[in-house]
Order: sequence, then C-alpha cells, then structure tokens
Amino acid sequence: MMVATMSTSIGSASALRAPSSNKRAGRSPRALVCRAQKQDGQARRSVRSAAATMEAPVGEEEGFQNVWRASYEADNESPELTKNWKKTMKVAVTGAAGQISNHLLFMLASGEVFGRDQPIQLQLLGSERSRVALEGVAMELEDSLYPLLREVQLGIDPRQVFADADWALLIGAKPRGPGMERKDLLDINGQIFQEQAQALNEVASRDCKMLVVGNPCNTNALIGMANAPDLPKRNWHALTRLDENRAKCQLALKAGKFYTSVTNCAIWGNHSTTQVPDFVNAKIGGKRVPAVIKDTAWLKEEFTPKVANRGGALIKKWGRSSAASTAVSVADHLRSLYTPTPMNDCFSTAVSTEGNPYGIDEDLVFSMPCRSTGDGDYEVIDDFVIDDWLAAKIKESEAELQKERDCVGHLIPGATRAVCMITEDTMLPGEN
Amino acid sequence: MMVATMSTSIGSASALRAPSSNKRAGRSPRALVCRAQKQDGQARRSVRSAAATMEAPVGEEEGFQNVWRASYEADNESPELTKNWKKTMKVAVTGAAGQISNHLLFMLASGEVFGRDQPIQLQLLGSERSRVALEGVAMELEDSLYPLLREVQLGIDPRQVFADADWALLIGAKPRGPGMERKDLLDINGQIFQEQAQALNEVASRDCKMLVVGNPCNTNALIGMANAPDLPKRNWHALTRLDENRAKCQLALKAGKFYTSVTNCAIWGNHSTTQVPDFVNAKIGGKRVPAVIKDTAWLKEEFTPKVANRGGALIKKWGRSSAASTAVSVADHLRSLYTPTPMNDCFSTAVSTEGNPYGIDEDLVFSMPCRSTGDGDYEVIDDFVIDDWLAAKIKESEAELQKERDCVGHLIPGATRAVCMITEDTMLPGEN
Repeated sequence: MMVATMSTSIGSASALRAPSSNKRAGRSPRALVCRAQKQDGQARRSVRSAAATMEAPVGEEEGFQNVWRASYEADNESPELTKNWKKTMKVAVTGAAGQISNHLLFMLASGEVFGRDQPIQLQLLGSERSRVALEGVAMELEDSLYPLLREVQLGIDPRQVFADADWALLIGAKPRGPGMERKDLLDINGQIFQEQAQALNEVASRDCKMLVVGNPCNTNALIGMANAPDLPKRNWHALTRLDENRAKCQLALKAGKFYTSVTNCAIWGNHSTTQVPDFVNAKIGGKRVPAVIKDTAWLKEEFTPKVANRGGALIKKWGRSSAASTAVSVADHLRSLYTPTPMNDCFSTAVSTEGNPYGIDEDLVFSMPCRSTGDGDYEVIDDFVIDDWLAAKIKESEAELQKERDCVGHLIPGATRAVCMITEDTMLPGEN
Repeated sequence: MMVATMSTSIGSASALRAPSSNKRAGRSPRALVCRAQKQDGQARRSVRSAAATMEAPVGEEEGFQNVWRASYEADNESPELTKNWKKTMKVAVTGAAGQISNHLLFMLASGEVFGRDQPIQLQLLGSERSRVALEGVAMELEDSLYPLLREVQLGIDPRQVFADADWALLIGAKPRGPGMERKDLLDINGQIFQEQAQALNEVASRDCKMLVVGNPCNTNALIGMANAPDLPKRNWHALTRLDENRAKCQLALKAGKFYTSVTNCAIWGNHSTTQVPDFVNAKIGGKRVPAVIKDTAWLKEEFTPKVANRGGALIKKWGRSSAASTAVSVADHLRSLYTPTPMNDCFSTAVSTEGNPYGIDEDLVFSMPCRSTGDGDYEVIDDFVIDDWLAAKIKESEAELQKERDCVGHLIPGATRAVCMITEDTMLPGEN
C-alpha cells in the first residue's frame, strides 16, 4: 500500500516542535505538507531504517525521525467552521493501539471531551510491536472524518511523541505476567513511567497535564512527578474516575434510584482494593446516603468490595477487561476539568497530597474529592466530613501507598527508602 | 453475583409492549421497578428456564419472558435535567455483543447521535452464545452513567427484543466460514434477516426504521422489506456511509485538502466491490472533483478500488476489522437523518429504489444520494449528473444486486425467480 493511501508521511522533528505551529488554530502548516509529500519515498525509507535500528541516531536525513504525521491543507474549508475555534490542543496518548485507546481516541476526536470548539492533534505512542497496528488506528480515525482532529502523529519514542504535548494520557503499561508479583509489576511499570516522565520533562508543554491510567496508577504518577521536576506536580493525575462511576452506579442500584441523582461521591486513596468509595459525604437526591440507604452493614461491608470487584465481575461476563467504560471514565475525568463543577458536587482524581487539608502523608498521589472552575485545573475540596470509619479506611489506603512508594524508591530521585515490604495483592480484579 | 449487582431484572412482556410506557418521556415507570424487585428471585429463575428451552412457550409466570431490564426510579432527578426531553426512543440493536456494537452502543447512549434531549432505551439482541457477554455490555453501559440511557433490555428472541422499537440497527450476521461461497452466505444471512423482519413486522413500532449493517447488507435489507409488509419500505436502510466516509477521505488525501472540504460525495449501488463512489458530482472546496483532481486515470481506475479495499488494508495493519469506524459511520448515518442536510450536499444510504429518478430497477435496495429535512426521513436527490462512466458503473452494481435478488428468491414472498447465478466474489475485503 502506498504512502498516499496511508496518508501518513513524515515530518521533521524540528517542525514538530516549532512553537509557531501552536499558534495556528486548527490549521496545518502548508509548507510542511508540501515538504513531506515531496520527500515521501525517501523519508519513508529513512523511517524504515530508523525502525530497524531504534537505538541508532535518528534524524540524519534533514531531521526526519520516526514520527508519522497526517497533514492536510485547510485552505478549502469553510471559514465558518473554524472561525471560533481555540488553538489546537496536542494530546499525547500512550498504549494507543490498545483496547482503552481504541475507544478513547474516537471520543477525543469527536469533540465530546474537550468541546466542539477545541481542535486537537493526537500524538500516539506505540511500541515496536504495535507500530503497524497504530497505523491501522490512524486509518480508522481518518475514515471517521472528525473535523476537529487536525493531525495524527504516530511514534515509538516518547521524546518525539510527547513534543509540545498539552495533555499526556498515559494508558500503556505492561500487564502482569504469570507468576509475577505485585512488586515486580511496580518495578517494571515504574521504569516505563520514569522514562516517560523524563521525556515529558524534556519536550512537553511547560503546562502539560498528565493522566496516568496504566497500573499501579497512583504510584506510577508519583514516580512520574518525581522524574519531571520542571512540570508542575499538581498537573499529574491518576485515574480513579472509573471507581467513582462504579460507586455511583452501585449506590443508585441499592437505592433504586437513577444514577443522575447521586452526587458528591468521592473515591479516596489508591486505585486498588484499598480504595475508599465515600458514602459518608455522597448524596442521593440531595440527602446524605446513610439517610437514604438504611442498610449500614451493606454500606460498610459490601459497598466497597462491590465497587472494587466490578471489573472482575465484568471480565467474567464479557471475557475481557472493561475498555469501553474505562475510556468513558477518562473522558469524564477530562471533561470535569473543563466544566465548572456544580455546587455541592465533586469529582475524584488521584493527585499530589502536598498541602492537603486532611492530614494525609504529603508525598503521595492520593484520590480525593476535587472541584474545578473549568479552566483545566482543580482544587481539593476541604470540607468533607471524615468520620471514624472513613478516617480508618483512608489510613489503610495511605499505608498501602506508602509501602508502594518504598518499593519504587530506586525510581524516585532523592528517595530516602527503597525497601519493598509489599506482600498482599491489592490489584483490582479484572485489571492488568 | 446477585441480581442487584447486575441491576438487571425481568419485566413482563405485556409491560414491555404497553403503549403507555412510550408516553413517559425519560421516566421509568415506578410500579414496574417495584414489581421486578419484589419478584426478583422467582423471575430470574423463570428466565433461566426459558433460556434453557428457548423454543418452549415463554411467559408462563405472569408473562415473564427472557428479557432482562434495568430499571430505576427517576424521582430524585433534578426536573431541570429532564424537563425538555423528548419521549424515549427505543433502539433495538442486533449483534449487540459484537465489536461494532461495543463502540456504537456507547455513542448512542452518550447522546451524540440522537441529541442531548433524546432519552433512549436500548433493546439488545444477542445469541444463546453471547448472552452472558451481553450482560457484561449492559454492566459497562451502567458504569458509564449516561443520563440519557434510561433502560437496557437484553434478550435472544427478536420477537421480544424488537417490541415497540423505533429503530432497529441490524448489525448481527453470520461471518463467512471457510470454504463458504457467497451464495451460501446470502442464504444463511438471508434467513436471519427474514426471521428478524417477520419479528419487526409483528412487534416493532409501526414507523420503525431499520438500518442493516450485517452483510450482504443491501440484499438483507431487500429480504427484510419483503418480509415486513406492514412496515414502510422506505424505512429500510443498508449502510453505505462507511464507504462514503472512506471515499471522502481518499479524495481529500489525493487533493491534499482537509476532508471537511469534500461535499456531495455519494456512493451508488451495492455495498460490495461493485460500489460506485461518485467523483463526478462530488466537490472539493465547492468545485467539482475533476476540476481539482486532474488525474483522470486515478479517479476512474484507482479511486474506487482504494475505497473498496480500505477495509482490507486496515485489517492487515490492525489485525481485525474496522469496528470503530464502522460504528462512527452508523452514527453518522443516523445523525444525517435527524439533521437538515446542508444545501448542495448529500448523504449516502442504500434504500428502496421504488420510484427512483435514475431508471434503476425499482425492486432493489440501492445506495443513492439523499437529503433529509432532519425529521428522520429522507428523499433521494433527483438532479445528480449521470455521465456515461457513472451510468455504466451504476449498471454493473445494479446487475449484481439483481443477481443477488435472484439468489434469495426463496426468502422473498412472491418472488418470481430463485436461481443463483453468482460466481464472483464481490465481498469487500476486510469484512465478514
């Protein structure tokens, strides 16, 4: 198949990083397109050789690197279409050939996440093994004709793919192999996130925001922020929104109400079986949950396992992990940061505990109730009621995250401790 | 796992078909929920036994049938949320546990297809083999907390699942097995569509609209309309929107323009290799394509195969068929019917040729350029220029569809001919 069919050709690394390209809201630079077209055959060969020798120096031929790009002129578009658009947002996604991404990328490209006036550029990170599949993903995105999707770049080197990224959705992680212990997984994935954080620190936008989905996500995010000293710590998130969504669903089902009536439902702590879905502060129809669901034993004993085991229950039915609803929760997470949070409501995200109002160890990534003014940033809500039950549960999850942090001390610059004491498996069933 | 966790319990067939339930815009009937909860354990058992003996009479126990439902009270919802909502649309989907549906159902539930004021009820048809997977799909839909998704029903009997349906998205079809010839596939899938059409004729809304995605989709739709005499013929569609999207993408790539500048691009004929992507009437930036793309040989010789082979090229990259972009094209198809078509533009859908202005055999399902006023209905555009090249290509696709019709004469009441002369394989590469 010809390059023309693939519609992907190669841009130069310098062009990829040119700050001026950020200023053209939704328009691809014409010169670049022509250049890529002219030098197509030659450039493609250089990619092939770069792929064959990934460690070899790249960019010998006029700075070409193994990053594909699909570029178009926007000359013939109706000005009506683009005149109110914001400047293009660059969204890097890792694990881009995987199942979660296969849902998420289409949601991002459709505009339902960042808004119908927000053009985006997708910068997709695959692996040597998935690079051809990634081309398939790019073809399907093309065939979907999303007006807001202005450009797709594919690559296997985070230092190229993360260039100028405004968001990095870090989905890719190694699944746990047979016989692998949790501490092995912490180490293996920790190394991946260390490398990616270093790349982000080097090449991403200085206000790049990061969302870690790959597990163990809280500690991966902690490793990330420690290895990206030039990026704001508060810009790191680990995903607990799927847990929040599942918690809302379970509360609604138990109460026999529709889930839109459940609000202020936070997840505290680690994205693991020690997570704490908060029924103390959650409300159903504006009333506190314990006033609606009188079954205290269910709330204290069954509710949390139901939420934590949902992925496991699902994989038994469906035969594979919950990629679609995970992607939906990533979309929800992002939307929550770009929409003002309604009064008396919150969303959950695992973020840096630095300066947190709840006395949690200040050097963790911990899920807490947050709100946003809709500018992409957030604040931790400071007036949640912490009763004894909640306090004890939060302590447990905190202790687990402290242990995880000790396990990955060798991946955290300046860490004082690197001894792995983890023996229990608190991985969520149904997740890698 | 308990029924409470599944959130699925069983409604009565009579309740499912009660016309009054249609009148409650976006509200689940309270009485039903209570009833289902009360009789949960008993009802669930009756389902199990119905499942075990699918042919046995169902509904012995107070009319319970093997249809699950997830129902909620909407009492505690903010009236602001639902006050401007339309009445709930019932959307039946077959092949609901498959890959295309796994994308499409989330698009439907999110509101991006039928609009943010259109609550929907999903009625999902699986098979005996996929019924447990279907429960997994329903769980993921629940965990996604879509406000507009008011109810999900699962079942394996089309006569139950299609009850009162406003739309039937007929995605499920048998894939071609090894050594199976095209005429065998026509027969096997034709039987499925005959049965489903009979069920629709019996139980669906009298204005139910049908979109056939399962292949060979044009002829499946022809069989469908012949076996559903009480439903309007014009309500049957077969999907050629993915072909249209791919054609637009290829024209844009060839011209080096962004695809939003390609308009009025129709697909004529069969969803097969004889399809005719129409570059004669298509425009790029408002100019006719041949005035923009001067490479006539490419337009006449390469363009059509590029479109037709796109799925095959993709499956080679991606390792599986193009489920996501197919789902996107189904969403596009539906949206086109509920959005006024812009001036000087069209969308493609394969519909009944009865009374068509182009002299095409009037007893086929044939893709043609259409427009809509946004009311869910369409009209065939009558002023497309048919030059000699286009006329000849349209004739070829017409002849193929006539042959397909002859092959399935035994499935079409009143058909005068049932002799299968098909020898060539015109199935699109990369499709089942």
